[in-house]
Amino acid sequence: MSVDKLCEKIIERQNPSVVGLDPVLSYIPQAIKDEMRAAHQNPFEAAAQSLLAFNQAIIDEIADVVPAVKPQIAFYEMYGWQGVRAYHETVEYAKKRGLYVIGDIKRGDIGSTAEAYAIGHMGRPDLFGEARAAFDTDAVTVNPYLGSDGILPFARLCKGKKMIFVLAKTSNQSSGEYQDQVTTSGETIYQLAASNMERLGESHMGACGYSDVGIVVGATYPAMLGELRERVPHTFFLVPGYGAQGGGGADAAPAFDSRGLGAIVNSSRGIICAWQKGGSDGRDFAKAAREAAIRMREDLLGVLGGKIG
Amino acid sequence: MSVDKLCEKIIERQNPSVVGLDPVLSYIPQAIKDEMRAAHQNPFEAAAQSLLAFNQAIIDEIADVVPAVKPQIAFYEMYGWQGVRAYHETVEYAKKRGLYVIGDIKRGDIGSTAEAYAIGHMGRPDLFGEARAAFDTDAVTVNPYLGSDGILPFARLCKGKKMIFVLAKTSNQSSGEYQDQVTTSGETIYQLAASNMERLGESHMGACGYSDVGIVVGATYPAMLGELRERVPHTFFLVPGYGAQGGGGADAAPAFDSRGLGAIVNSSRGIICAWQKGGSDGRDFAKAAREAAIRMREDLLGVLGGKIG
Repeated sequence: MSVDKLCEKIIERQNPSVVGLDPVLSYIPQAIKDEMRAAHQNPFEAAAQSLLAFNQAIIDEIADVVPAVKPQIAFYEMYGWQGVRAYHETVEYAKKRGLYVIGDIKRGDIGSTAEAYAIGHMGRPDLFGEARAAFDTDAVTVNPYLGSDGILPFARLCKGKKMIFVLAKTSNQSSGEYQDQVTTSGETIYQLAASNMERLGESHMGACGYSDVGIVVGATYPAMLGELRERVPHTFFLVPGYGAQGGGGADAAPAFDSRGLGAIVNSSRGIICAWQKGGSDGRDFAKAAREAAIRMREDLLGVLGGKIG
Repeated sequence: MSVDKLCEKIIERQNPSVVGLDPVLSYIPQAIKDEMRAAHQNPFEAAAQSLLAFNQAIIDEIADVVPAVKPQIAFYEMYGWQGVRAYHETVEYAKKRGLYVIGDIKRGDIGSTAEAYAIGHMGRPDLFGEARAAFDTDAVTVNPYLGSDGILPFARLCKGKKMIFVLAKTSNQSSGEYQDQVTTSGETIYQLAASNMERLGESHMGACGYSDVGIVVGATYPAMLGELRERVPHTFFLVPGYGAQGGGGADAAPAFDSRGLGAIVNSSRGIICAWQKGGSDGRDFAKAAREAAIRMREDLLGVLGGKIG
């Protein structure tokens, strides 16, 4: 199962963290942008090439430190189809460097449309009789608002080789507006989503004790993390909200089981923008990302008693 | 306001419908695919050019019949970044032909990420000091699961020139799993979403009596359409589910006010796949789409008493 591959990489690196590759031009050192503007007349092309060069340098520096990266597709779509091409190229590059790639796409739609998304991001579209992957991520995030119609097409394409993380409790401040609503059964919407995914995961179980159907739960809500860890013991957690969003290692701790498994914690700006903290000119941006990733590993490992697996 | 522009086009064409441009290669006549495969070695490129040629021919035939088109981005993403480029080119082509373009993207994320989506799909990213639109749709669909953090960045970018449609009650069978859950206040999640959007719309009101903050409500749930029409009287409805999904003109009727305004009804496969119904070889696909669009207008106009506005 795909979740086993993820757990193996986490144990191998002794690191349950994922670096969010969420590049914005303002995060990218001037030297890269100057080079790309000189090389490409079209500003979308120059932007896309800047994102890619930035990502590749960071991936090179962190590939032996972290098990996974999570490009957030919004930051690529912002720069048009050229940006989306940079997303694709980032995914391919990270996989070549041995990283598990979680595409943070948060897609969700009615059945036939969800299937198109699933084929595009984890399957192989039929191209005149030939099946070729479009965006070949190891896992994607999925929005549950449309119900199982919108989730099953993704789950069906997992086939032991891919994984999904369905939004349960997101890390943002207003996440409670719908997710925390208590239904007539006494459960909240996020608990209901989590329970539904635990059940769906039963037919996607890995050897590690978790399934290929994971959920997203923010580090910014530690009490809910712990409560969900008990409620859905076979469901792997993708945990955003560490670092720039305010969560620390101790906040994320309730997401893990006694082996230090069961969750992977994301930091985006805390890692990729680390170079901007010291007032540097940006030449050391990739090294700064590496150092920040190592600090995050130490923080999480410390909380988990020094050993995973 | 953008909703006024949409209402003007609806009144001008006497047609409250929108054609969903959701192309899949299997919907496209063989002659187009053969031509594009001969012209482009890369199968993604050939696929993308097939989608675009198919869309352009349909747009040419329906531009004087319908006020709007709604490309569903999933069906473009399925064909990689080349498909996403075809989405962009479809949007541009439809706008040149005078159509209001609703990008069916159903994005939703935490604040900073939602802002990146909003900038990409309805704003202008900063490209080295220059602001240029990436995907310049008139309106987009938004998923509410993350709460107002995920919606406000889109609403802020409306600025009287753009519009959003936030998912309330979607047309699919399993939409009730979360949307119909009754909260402790006695409201369902979809009612809560609708009421929140009515309130958000107060600062985005158009002259037509509706705001630039619309919602999505499926034609497959006529009773809920009528109930929501009363609950949120200033909120414009995007109504999917007509045609292939099972809804008819009578099902969509409760979405409209006494002027025949307040809603726009979508049909995708019913229009763009109309040529496949008669067992034709596909040479007449665009004309078949036009005829299907005219039949849909007649169906809806009939239900609305023969006159809009």
